[in-house]
Amino acid sequence: MLETVEVGATVSKADYEAEVKQLRVDLLNAQFDLQEASFPVIVLVVGNDRPGCNATVQTLHEWIDVRHVRTRAFGPPTVEEATYPRMWRYWMHLPANGRIGIYLGGLALEMISQRAAGKIDDAGLDLQANHMVQFLETLAEDGALVLRFWLHLPKKELGKRLKKSKKYKDWRLDEQDWRIHESYDDSVPIVERVLRKTALPRAPWNLVESTDERHRNLTVGKALLSALTNRLTATEPPPPPSNDAVELETGGNVLDTIDLSASLKRGEYRQRLDDLQTRLRKLARTACERDHRLVLVFEGQDAAGKGGAIRRITNAMNVRDYKVVPVAAPTDEERSHHYLWRFWRHLPREGKILVFDRSWYGRVLVERVEGFAHEAEWRRAYREINDFEEQLVEHGVGVVKFWLQIDRDEQLARFQARERTPYKKYKITDEDYRNRERWDEYAAAVNEMVARTSSEIAPWHLVAANDKRWARIRILETVVEAVERAQADPA
Amino acid sequence: MLETVEVGATVSKADYEAEVKQLRVDLLNAQFDLQEASFPVIVLVVGNDRPGCNATVQTLHEWIDVRHVRTRAFGPPTVEEATYPRMWRYWMHLPANGRIGIYLGGLALEMISQRAAGKIDDAGLDLQANHMVQFLETLAEDGALVLRFWLHLPKKELGKRLKKSKKYKDWRLDEQDWRIHESYDDSVPIVERVLRKTALPRAPWNLVESTDERHRNLTVGKALLSALTNRLTATEPPPPPSNDAVELETGGNVLDTIDLSASLKRGEYRQRLDDLQTRLRKLARTACERDHRLVLVFEGQDAAGKGGAIRRITNAMNVRDYKVVPVAAPTDEERSHHYLWRFWRHLPREGKILVFDRSWYGRVLVERVEGFAHEAEWRRAYREINDFEEQLVEHGVGVVKFWLQIDRDEQLARFQARERTPYKKYKITDEDYRNRERWDEYAAAVNEMVARTSSEIAPWHLVAANDKRWARIRILETVVEAVERAQADPA
Repeated sequence: MLETVEVGATVSKADYEAEVKQLRVDLLNAQFDLQEASFPVIVLVVGNDRPGCNATVQTLHEWIDVRHVRTRAFGPPTVEEATYPRMWRYWMHLPANGRIGIYLGGLALEMISQRAAGKIDDAGLDLQANHMVQFLETLAEDGALVLRFWLHLPKKELGKRLKKSKKYKDWRLDEQDWRIHESYDDSVPIVERVLRKTALPRAPWNLVESTDERHRNLTVGKALLSALTNRLTATEPPPPPSNDAVELETGGNVLDTIDLSASLKRGEYRQRLDDLQTRLRKLARTACERDHRLVLVFEGQDAAGKGGAIRRITNAMNVRDYKVVPVAAPTDEERSHHYLWRFWRHLPREGKILVFDRSWYGRVLVERVEGFAHEAEWRRAYREINDFEEQLVEHGVGVVKFWLQIDRDEQLARFQARERTPYKKYKITDEDYRNRERWDEYAAAVNEMVARTSSEIAPWHLVAANDKRWARIRILETVVEAVERAQADPA
Repeated sequence: MLETVEVGATVSKADYEAEVKQLRVDLLNAQFDLQEASFPVIVLVVGNDRPGCNATVQTLHEWIDVRHVRTRAFGPPTVEEATYPRMWRYWMHLPANGRIGIYLGGLALEMISQRAAGKIDDAGLDLQANHMVQFLETLAEDGALVLRFWLHLPKKELGKRLKKSKKYKDWRLDEQDWRIHESYDDSVPIVERVLRKTALPRAPWNLVESTDERHRNLTVGKALLSALTNRLTATEPPPPPSNDAVELETGGNVLDTIDLSASLKRGEYRQRLDDLQTRLRKLARTACERDHRLVLVFEGQDAAGKGGAIRRITNAMNVRDYKVVPVAAPTDEERSHHYLWRFWRHLPREGKILVFDRSWYGRVLVERVEGFAHEAEWRRAYREINDFEEQLVEHGVGVVKFWLQIDRDEQLARFQARERTPYKKYKITDEDYRNRERWDEYAAAVNEMVARTSSEIAPWHLVAANDKRWARIRILETVVEAVERAQADPA
């Protein structure tokens, strides 16, 4: 695979200068058009030629307008970064629509060096490769233009450079490059495995021979220009049909299985509430001391009682230990990124309990039903969400999800009650009444959501919420059990 | 000072319940109106009653709509936070307009415990107090509603609680509270010094006796409501006249002193460029290895050559070590915060060189001349900017600022040249021509800016830029000297 690029390609100085002159004009013009486009450009530059990667990015900086480019060199994760799931820092570097984000080094190199050092085995490598694929595929499907360059230096050439660098004290090469040279033969199969395992039809790796600097820079620059131009001049394709655009036939709606008549008497409620809150208080303290993290997701119809249930949980915790994240309309910064970006942005640090009042599931609920997202977009969101939650769980973050279900009559009664209560009246708007009209569509969306995203690692808990007391106790019990299980788990 | 609140105030359960009922309604309604307001609310809750502070915030969470509230408990800075100037994490927690930000613990406690432990002296304490005052005053002047509560527990009461907690294993009190009790008498003068030194007429400390829980919660809740209501019902005052709204009379414009005829021959330029870039390359490597940080600020007329000069500097650095931050129009998130917020947001981590292509000086340049900022706003910006840069310098970040000066004829020639150059033509817009018409107003603004913000710790360098070669060499020389000086400095 790698050997195929070792053809000794070179570009003469005269040719280079002539080509670069036009290339710069074209790149700047393309970049100007890109500013108006509704997609970001992601450029990964990585390879065994470390100084070459730096130099190529430096050259790109000279050719394009750096005011619309974010570049980051990814070394080992910082202390803070290590407290987040692996992909967090890559999400955080995501460029906004109309901009270019350059990723220098990073994940591909990380897995290679970990594998070479024996810190992970092939399965561990494949897991990381899978994260990378998910990340890039998610973005590419959402419209991002993804370009990947692997700058390959043949062993002989690297050896030559190292020898020369010793003689002339070249600051660009250091011990790491010597190590790359020493383990060159061993690492070839690892590199090839990574390239294979991270293959992506929408964004294939560009293998670039890095021996000749001019050839290398020109190849990368021209590939970037060509991809930009193709993309910018392409007529907007219709939203692609999704692979799994099949109506889910579950033979009925899972919401119908919820017994909405379930209720609790006030006396019993009081007692169990006290008991559960006391248990949760202790558990939450311990969880935070042990740096366990927990994400609680609350979804439900309007007026289903999410706020009240959340308050019964947070009341039992130290105010230092939890954070409630209300999810409303995205800001313009959020709108110009992939929709999951804003949730990555809000992930808790170590030792925190994060409560989402509405969540990323908006994509397959309100955005689906109200038509804010294309069918292809919300359909692929099931997989994106499963991947996202899987990454949280792999990183040791517990994910517990609640759907609070009420019926139409109960909702109407609560709307009317709120309108009579002075401090709640603001909660009811015309929109709330409009949403009621799409009750069945929402029910179908919830049914499909639960079917597609309830998993053992991040299950949905469907809660009968016509009786608030019943719902709050069920939710508290579930949270208490989840935290207890996490603490019993030796992992 | 503290003793004055030890009056043994209590609230009966019946009174409390009656008052709270109405208070909640009023708070929720006020909070609803706040959402439309163009200012944020900052609530500091701190005191020697640690569990009481937590409980009060918890109670506020029950009373108000947490969906529009951000709360953070500030413990010791994390590893990441410690790499930034002290106030960075407080800036990062700033609520947007229309929202409430609760700061629990934090700076006031930090300085008290550091002073009590002898880690800082009175002067060190005053320095930190000064940072806090600057921070809050800056925000208050910009329109933020700032509320500060010090929850005071008399020594006897704290002793009683500790004794009781031992008996009943109260999880809310821990060793830290025992330490507070032990050093109670010694810390009184420190606390009082902090309260004095952080006094702020616009946002006085509310000293609250914390003995009776109901009294404490009610006092805080009512103070919040009353401040919110007053502020929301106040008729919008005219922008206040600034204290220093005096025309700066420097007897001439500093820009006139720049010899714009300065130029360099190509040959000499080449040689000095090579030499300076080689020196800078080594210096920058060393700076980054030593975690020195440097902020370079570039301002100048349109087409003054900022981009070209920046490129000559970044070319001499490893792409991993620098970041160029172009400053354009703020996003909506940025617009709903104090204008300095977005610059705090972009501060570099350890060991990075950050280049601002335009900067926070936009406030006193384009925003002043084009009328985007009130006179009071841009006038107070001089002090805000000086404070901001002082904090960077105190934290060990070097700040070097360049103003690139060209004359009107040269600018016109460059505009026209750009219009003929295919890949630069996009840089010229009608706005650029319009800005030319305000040439003299810009000159006056630059003159005042330099006079008010050039200091020994963060000087302005005025660069004759009619000749690009001359300007680039002057700038490179200045950067090289600044880095050399920083590395020679043993501090």
